[in-house]
Amino acid sequence: MIYLKNDYSLGAHPQIMQALSDTNMIHTTGYGEDPFCEEARRLLKKQLAADEADIHFLMGGTQTNLTAMAAFLRPHHAIIAADSAHICVHETGAIEATGHKVIACPSPDGKLLPQQIEDAVLVHKDEHMVKPKLVYISNTTEVGTVYDRDELQALRSVCDKYGLYLYLDGARLGCALTAPDIQLTLADLARLTDAFYIGGTKNGVLFGEALAILNPELKEDFRYHIKQRGGMMAKGRLLGIQFRELFKDGLYFDLARHANEMAQILKNGIIGGGYEFFVDSPTNQIFPILPNMVADHLRELVSFEDWQPYGDRATVIRLVTSWGTTEDEIMEFLRHL
Amino acid sequence: MIYLKNDYSLGAHPQIMQALSDTNMIHTTGYGEDPFCEEARRLLKKQLAADEADIHFLMGGTQTNLTAMAAFLRPHHAIIAADSAHICVHETGAIEATGHKVIACPSPDGKLLPQQIEDAVLVHKDEHMVKPKLVYISNTTEVGTVYDRDELQALRSVCDKYGLYLYLDGARLGCALTAPDIQLTLADLARLTDAFYIGGTKNGVLFGEALAILNPELKEDFRYHIKQRGGMMAKGRLLGIQFRELFKDGLYFDLARHANEMAQILKNGIIGGGYEFFVDSPTNQIFPILPNMVADHLRELVSFEDWQPYGDRATVIRLVTSWGTTEDEIMEFLRHL
Amino acid sequence: MIYLKNDYSLGAHPQIMQALSDTNMIHTTGYGEDPFCEEARRLLKKQLAADEADIHFLMGGTQTNLTAMAAFLRPHHAIIAADSAHICVHETGAIEATGHKVIACPSPDGKLLPQQIEDAVLVHKDEHMVKPKLVYISNTTEVGTVYDRDELQALRSVCDKYGLYLYLDGARLGCALTAPDIQLTLADLARLTDAFYIGGTKNGVLFGEALAILNPELKEDFRYHIKQRGGMMAKGRLLGIQFRELFKDGLYFDLARHANEMAQILKNGIIGGGYEFFVDSPTNQIFPILPNMVADHLRELVSFEDWQPYGDRATVIRLVTSWGTTEDEIMEFLRHL
Amino acid sequence: MIYLKNDYSLGAHPQIMQALSDTNMIHTTGYGEDPFCEEARRLLKKQLAADEADIHFLMGGTQTNLTAMAAFLRPHHAIIAADSAHICVHETGAIEATGHKVIACPSPDGKLLPQQIEDAVLVHKDEHMVKPKLVYISNTTEVGTVYDRDELQALRSVCDKYGLYLYLDGARLGCALTAPDIQLTLADLARLTDAFYIGGTKNGVLFGEALAILNPELKEDFRYHIKQRGGMMAKGRLLGIQFRELFKDGLYFDLARHANEMAQILKNGIIGGGYEFFVDSPTNQIFPILPNMVADHLRELVSFEDWQPYGDRATVIRLVTSWGTTEDEIMEFLRHL
Repeated sequence: MIYLKNDYSLGAHPQIMQALSDTNMIHTTGYGEDPFCEEARRLLKKQLAADEADIHFLMGGTQTNLTAMAAFLRPHHAIIAADSAHICVHETGAIEATGHKVIACPSPDGKLLPQQIEDAVLVHKDEHMVKPKLVYISNTTEVGTVYDRDELQALRSVCDKYGLYLYLDGARLGCALTAPDIQLTLADLARLTDAFYIGGTKNGVLFGEALAILNPELKEDFRYHIKQRGGMMAKGRLLGIQFRELFKDGLYFDLARHANEMAQILKNGIIGGGYEFFVDSPTNQIFPILPNMVADHLRELVSFEDWQPYGDRATVIRLVTSWGTTEDEIMEFLRHL
Repeated sequence: MIYLKNDYSLGAHPQIMQALSDTNMIHTTGYGEDPFCEEARRLLKKQLAADEADIHFLMGGTQTNLTAMAAFLRPHHAIIAADSAHICVHETGAIEATGHKVIACPSPDGKLLPQQIEDAVLVHKDEHMVKPKLVYISNTTEVGTVYDRDELQALRSVCDKYGLYLYLDGARLGCALTAPDIQLTLADLARLTDAFYIGGTKNGVLFGEALAILNPELKEDFRYHIKQRGGMMAKGRLLGIQFRELFKDGLYFDLARHANEMAQILKNGIIGGGYEFFVDSPTNQIFPILPNMVADHLRELVSFEDWQPYGDRATVIRLVTSWGTTEDEIMEFLRHL
Repeated sequence: MIYLKNDYSLGAHPQIMQALSDTNMIHTTGYGEDPFCEEARRLLKKQLAADEADIHFLMGGTQTNLTAMAAFLRPHHAIIAADSAHICVHETGAIEATGHKVIACPSPDGKLLPQQIEDAVLVHKDEHMVKPKLVYISNTTEVGTVYDRDELQALRSVCDKYGLYLYLDGARLGCALTAPDIQLTLADLARLTDAFYIGGTKNGVLFGEALAILNPELKEDFRYHIKQRGGMMAKGRLLGIQFRELFKDGLYFDLARHANEMAQILKNGIIGGGYEFFVDSPTNQIFPILPNMVADHLRELVSFEDWQPYGDRATVIRLVTSWGTTEDEIMEFLRHL
Repeated sequence: MIYLKNDYSLGAHPQIMQALSDTNMIHTTGYGEDPFCEEARRLLKKQLAADEADIHFLMGGTQTNLTAMAAFLRPHHAIIAADSAHICVHETGAIEATGHKVIACPSPDGKLLPQQIEDAVLVHKDEHMVKPKLVYISNTTEVGTVYDRDELQALRSVCDKYGLYLYLDGARLGCALTAPDIQLTLADLARLTDAFYIGGTKNGVLFGEALAILNPELKEDFRYHIKQRGGMMAKGRLLGIQFRELFKDGLYFDLARHANEMAQILKNGIIGGGYEFFVDSPTNQIFPILPNMVADHLRELVSFEDWQPYGDRATVIRLVTSWGTTEDEIMEFLRHL
C-alpha cells in the first residue's frame, strides 16, 4: 500500500527520534523552560531575524490557533478567513468555542484577497455586529496553494489600514517556503505578520508547532493562555528537542523540499497521463480529477482521500506527500495509474 | 544534583522509547483510530473489567480535565472539589474558561469528604445559584494521600443520592493503586466513578493520559470535544503505542510501585533524622518540615520545591520520586541530610 | 416628521401603560413567580393549545436567543440559519460568545429551505467538524417575508429526519400570524417547533418576549440559564402584566394586524407611484427601490433606514410600520412621495 | 401583610411612572441613543464631577456585572471578591460563564479588606494559576454594611500597588450614600473606582442600572459588549427617562434615605424588644436574631426572608425596607413583635 492520504502517517524523521533518545535520561525543568527549548528559541529567532520575537511551543495546530486567537482578541472581535480555512471547516468550532465569530469569505483557491478583507471590515459598521480584528490565513493553504511575499505585503497593507492583526497558520509552512519560484522567508513572515506558527507535526516531528508572536501588544502573559487551554506540556522539552533538531542544520527546509519534489513528480506524471487538476498546487498536496473507475482502481494500491465528487463520473482526490514519501512509491503509483 | 522536584523531569522509560522507535516507520491512520490505540484500548478495558467503557487518549492532565468537564456538563452546572484540587489551583482557571464554577471545599489532607459534598449540594438550593453536578477528586491527591476503595464507595453513595457525577483525576493514579495497604483496583474505579483518567505523563511515558468514560450518558460524541479543545493528536498512535507498552505486562504498576518505594525509604530516613511531616503521604510525594538551615544546605545537592513556610524558622518542602529515581540517589540524599 | 424607521420608536400601547399603572403599588414576589406572570402563562398556553408548554418571559430578542441556544446545545453543536438571520448579522456574535458556530446558508428572501438544512447536515460528517443540531428561523424574516404552515411542516420533517431542533425567533411573529393569506396559528407553532418566542417589544409593549419550550428534553433547569445570562428581572411581574394585557382580549393580534395594514396601504401607494420593491413582503417591513433623488427628498419629512444601494442611482430603503402608525401619516407620506 | 422581603416588590415610584407615561407617545431613536438617555447621562456626569466618564444604562445587576467583567478582562484574569459577594453566590455562575474565576475571600461582614487583596495577589505567582486583575466590591454589601470613603481609599491604594481594577456593584448604592455618618459621594466613587454602577431597580425605578466607566482603558467598544450579552434594549429610552427622573432633583437620594430611615426605626424597635442582630447594618437590610417561636408568629403578618438558622432555637431573618415602606407598616410590625 502506498500511503498518500496525509503527511502525518509516520512517526518522526530518524534524526528527530535519535535526538529524543539521546536526551531521554537528562533531568530538566518542565513546561518549556528547559535548555532545549531555550536553544530552539534561539535558533528560531535567528531564522526570523527577530530577536524580540516571543516563541512558544505547542502540541498541535488546532490548539495553537485557538490559544492564540483567544489570547489576542476581546470578546466582540471577529476573525476574517477564507471559507476553506482550517478554522472554518476542520476544527470543530474550536474558535467559536472560545467565543469568537469567524467571517468566512468565498475562496476557490484557498487564498484570501485584500479586497475581501476590506469589504468584510466595511460591512461591519456598528455595535450591532461583531468587529473584525484579526485576519487568518494559512500558508500553504488547505488546497496547497501558496501566498508569496508580495501577496502577504498586500494583506499587511490592508490590515494596517484597518487596524487588523495578521495571523498565519503555518501547519504546512515548510512546503510554502520551499515551493518553486516562491521568494518568501521566515524573516519576511516575522516582518509581515503579527503572529504566525511554524508547523512541525506535518513536517517530520512527532508533534509540535512553534508560535512566533511579533506584535508586542500580543505578547503579554501568553504562557497563562497556553496553560489555561491545556497546551502546556509537563515535558515541554520534547518540543524544544525536536525544533532544535529541525532548525540547527536546515532539516526543516530539506524535509519540506523533499515533500514538494515528490508531489511535483507525481503531478507531472498524472498530467502526462492526461488528467487535469482541481486546483493548481505547487506544494505537497495535489488534487487530480480522476474518472471514478480510475480512482477505484487506484484504491487497491494507494491510500488517499476523496476530496469531492466532480460531476457524476469523476472524483477529485487529494494526494499528499511527505518527508517520508520515496521516489519508488511515486513511480509505482504512476505505473499503476 | 539529585532531582526530586517532580516526576516529569526525564523523558520516558526506555521500554517506551524502544516501542516508539520500533513503530516509527509504520504508516497508520491518524487521530487515534490506528491499531496501536485499538490494542491499548483493549488492554485497558480488560484491566477495568469494563468492555463497554469508552477509552480516549489525551495529551495532558489539564487538557483531559477541561475537555471532560466541558463535555459532561451543561452551562449552569458546577463542580465540587477540594480547595487543594489541581483544577482549583494549578490549571489557570481552565475549567472556568469553559464556563463552569468550581466550588472549593477546605481540605487539609487533599481529600473530599462525603459530608462536604452533601453540604455543598444542600446550600445550592435554587436557580439563583449554580447547580452542583460533578464531584472532582484526585487520587493520589495533590499532597500524596490516597482514597481507598471504601472511601470511594462512600463518595459514590453521596453522588448517587444527589444525582452527581463522580470524576477522578488520576494524574498519579499508579501511585495510589500501588500504595501500601491500599485495596483499590482499576476495576473498582470503573465500577465506582462515572469517568476517570489514568495518568501516563507522571508515570513513565513522554506524555499521555487515558480517559475512561463509564457512564453511558457521558459518552456521546466525546471525540468532537477532544477535537474542539485542541486535544486530538494528528499522530494519535503515539498515545496508543505508549499505553500499550504500559499495560501489556504491568509496566504501569511496576513503575509506580518503584516510585512509592523510593519515597518510603526516603521518608523513613528523614524520620530517622528526627524530622516531622506536614502531611502523612504513603506515595511518591512527601512533605518534610525542615529547619530553614537544613533546607538551604540540601539545596546545594538536591533539586526540590519549597511548598510553604512553616513558622519563621522552618519550611515545608516537597520531595517527589519517580520511576527514574534510584536507591543510590536516595541514599546520597539521606547522607547529605 | 413621519417615523417609519422601526417598530420600537414609541413607548407602549396605552392599554399596556394603563395596566402597569394600575398594578404599580401591589407587592409581589420577584423573578417571574408572581400572579401576573402566572396568569399570562395560562393565557399563552391556551393560545398554544399546549398545557405542557414551559413559558418564560425575557427582556429582549438577543437575550432570548442566546439564553435558549446556550441552554439547549452541547459545546460541539452548531446552528443552521439563513445568512440574513438576526443571529448571523445583528447580534454582535452573541451566539458565538456562548461557544456555538452558526452555519449561514444563502437566502435572498430571508427564508431557509429544507434542502439547505439537509445539505448542511450531510457536509458535516465527522468529529473534525461541528455537529449541526438546531435550525434557527425567524418569522417574519428579517426582510418581512413569512413562513406559512406548510413551509414550517416541511422544515419540521427535515429536522425530524436528522434529529435537529427547530427554533423560531418571533420578534415580529404577530405580523406573520396576521399577514394576509397566512394560515399559521400559535397552536401550529407549538406543534411544529421545539421552542419559539413571541415578540412583544416590536408589537406594543415596553419590552418583553415570551419563550415557549415545547420539547420536554429542553425544559430542564431553564430558569438557571435565564439567571446566568442576566435575563432574570427582579420585577419580573412587568413582563407578566404586559403579556397578560396582550393576550387577554387579542390585543397582540390587533396591533400586528394594524401594522400590516398600514404597510400594505403604503406599499400599494408606492406601487401606484411606479416604484418597484427589493423583496415582496406582506408584512410591516417593506423595501421600495427609490431613485436617490426621491429618497433624499423623502428624508426631509420621513425618518427611515437606508437598506442598501441599488446600482449607482437608486437605493433600497426600509419602511417599517407599527401599532402606532396612523393612516394620516401614511397618506402624508404618499403625498410627499 | 407587611412586605419586608425585599426592595423590589412594588413597581416604580409614582414620579417615575408619570415620566414614562408623559413620554410614551414620543418617537425616539433606539438603543440608548435618544435625548432622554443623553440628558440622564449629563445629569449623572455632573453628579460624578466626571465629564469624561462613560455612562451606560443596563437592565439589571447580574447583566451589568457580567457584561462589564467580560469586557474588562482577558481570559486568564480573575476577580477577587468577598465570599458573600453577589457574584459569588447569587448570580448562577454568570461570571464563570464568561470564562473567569472568582477568588472568594472569607468575610463575616460582607466587606473585603486590603490585606485580603494583597494576599490573594501574592499567592497567585505564576502562569499555572489565574492572574487576579479586578477587585469586586458591593456597597452596600450583601448584608447591608457600608464602605466609607477612607475604606475605599485603602482599597484603591492596594489596587494601584498591584495594577488591579476596582469595580463597585452599586445595586443598593443609594442606601450606602445616604447611610448615617457616611461621607461618601458619587464624585468620590468616580475618583476611586475604575468602574461602578448605580442601582435603580432596588431604589424606585421599574428596572435599570447606570454603569459609569472611569478608567479610559476600559471604555473602548463597550456598547458592543452590551449588545453581545443581550443587554441593549431596543427602547433604551426607558432607562434614560427613569434615570433622568431619579437624578434631576435628587429623588434617588430621597428614596434611599427614606428606606434607611424606615430600617433604623425598625432596628431600634427590635433592639427595644430585647433582640440582637447578626450583623450591624446601618442601611435598609437588617438581620435580627429571633427565637423560632417569635419568627413563626411574625410570619402570619409579615413577609420576610429566613437568612440562616442560629443554633437550634433561633433564626436570623432578613428585613428589607424600601422607598415604598411606610412608617405605619413599621409601627404595626413592632406592635406585632
